[in-house]
Amino acid sequence: MDRNQLVAEIKSKKSLLCVGLDTDIEKIPAHLLQEEDPVFAFNKAIIDATAEYAVSYKLNTAFYEALGIQGWLSLQKTLNYIPGNIFTIADAKRGDIGNTADQYAKTFFQTYPFDSVTVAPYMGEDSVKPFLQYDGKWAIVLGVTSNAGSKDFQFLKCEDELLYEKVMQKVAGWGTPSNTMFVVGATRTEQLREVRQLLPDHFFLIPGVGAQGGDVPTVCNNAMNNDGGVLINVSRGVIYKSSGADFAIAAAKAAKEYQQEMAAFL
Amino acid sequence: MDRNQLVAEIKSKKSLLCVGLDTDIEKIPAHLLQEEDPVFAFNKAIIDATAEYAVSYKLNTAFYEALGIQGWLSLQKTLNYIPGNIFTIADAKRGDIGNTADQYAKTFFQTYPFDSVTVAPYMGEDSVKPFLQYDGKWAIVLGVTSNAGSKDFQFLKCEDELLYEKVMQKVAGWGTPSNTMFVVGATRTEQLREVRQLLPDHFFLIPGVGAQGGDVPTVCNNAMNNDGGVLINVSRGVIYKSSGADFAIAAAKAAKEYQQEMAAFL
Repeated sequence: MDRNQLVAEIKSKKSLLCVGLDTDIEKIPAHLLQEEDPVFAFNKAIIDATAEYAVSYKLNTAFYEALGIQGWLSLQKTLNYIPGNIFTIADAKRGDIGNTADQYAKTFFQTYPFDSVTVAPYMGEDSVKPFLQYDGKWAIVLGVTSNAGSKDFQFLKCEDELLYEKVMQKVAGWGTPSNTMFVVGATRTEQLREVRQLLPDHFFLIPGVGAQGGDVPTVCNNAMNNDGGVLINVSRGVIYKSSGADFAIAAAKAAKEYQQEMAAFL
Repeated sequence: MDRNQLVAEIKSKKSLLCVGLDTDIEKIPAHLLQEEDPVFAFNKAIIDATAEYAVSYKLNTAFYEALGIQGWLSLQKTLNYIPGNIFTIADAKRGDIGNTADQYAKTFFQTYPFDSVTVAPYMGEDSVKPFLQYDGKWAIVLGVTSNAGSKDFQFLKCEDELLYEKVMQKVAGWGTPSNTMFVVGATRTEQLREVRQLLPDHFFLIPGVGAQGGDVPTVCNNAMNNDGGVLINVSRGVIYKSSGADFAIAAAKAAKEYQQEMAAFL
């Protein structure tokens, strides 16, 4: 999906919502465990319930990989089921030397045709560039993350800047705002405003709203640009709103509330 | 596998050799493509030919993931086929927030019972710790890598040290030399000696010998400790020595030459 299509979807739905399908077989409603593919059954119901409000779905690959072959089958079915107008993210955080990054790009752009994949920057340019060679595909590189451990290295002062500032500026030079996004945690309010000044045109994938404590107005007030410029991910705050038979209804309600909160800024 | 078992294997075989099974279906001998599972057929022949000389096998997961379900089946069969006295590494370079790192640990320590998995440090403590909770399992964290892109961030000066020095010292404090190793590229001669001084007891997984230009004597002279302390990975320089029907014989010959070069230091 190219940038124009993504922006059109954001403006048409008046939404910046990315629903995170971090589907944990130990957390889905018990009645689904009788289904042939409980994870897909759950995802299908969530997608049916939220597609009206979401401009993106993010599949956290760890939850699928942990289930082995069955997990990859569920991932494939889920990806196939997502409507073509909705931006898909493989949240896989891959990063390796060039010949290996080529294989990861093949994995998530061809074998499983996602629109984008999250990438870890530690190994530098040759670990990122292979993801920038596909038309209409995106690398979403870790900038400043939402977790406690982000302070361990990302906030180190490196040659008069913080490491994440160095990372984001350097990585931005390897691609364009039409094939590169950054992960910027919603729990880092100061950083939201600062990275938007640093990179006015790029999209940011923003996790950390909901279970991790971030909120929509803070993100929108500090990090949006004229194209929207942010995809605000909510995982647990949508997909696990109810653990009962009404889980999809509860997810739809939560997604709609998030979308309406976002619409005020669009 | 615990540290005592690994050290015993190193001393018994007089070897530090890790054979990298970066098995690319586009590079294996053509006659294997008629096999039901060409990747496993290749790996099985390589393992049969090299198990006498190797103390470790490293599976680069990217090459398996790129093949989808079939790739994971080949990975599973290969892992099952590796003799139990040989240390296994899932070279997956995972790294994510705590609840997701838990799932990756489950993937590579339970679903696919490797002895170790490579981990990217950018997201900090909660992204590494879940891999340190399993008895006899190891996290192998990226320190200073062998690729050109390693200069982009790892060598940034951060508060009077280089980033990789900060990373290795901090990560070392989260575990012990019996559950944590580091990736240290063989192409960085100066760093081999320096990181050994920094961390006298830890094992280092050392890629970069062979196709990437590193050599065994430089690694052994600069980075070994009394337990061996290094696993020297060779991938292309063993598994692709011949592209003909004699590929396994050629791999055995290359592995033996590496082992003999290493034996002089053990």
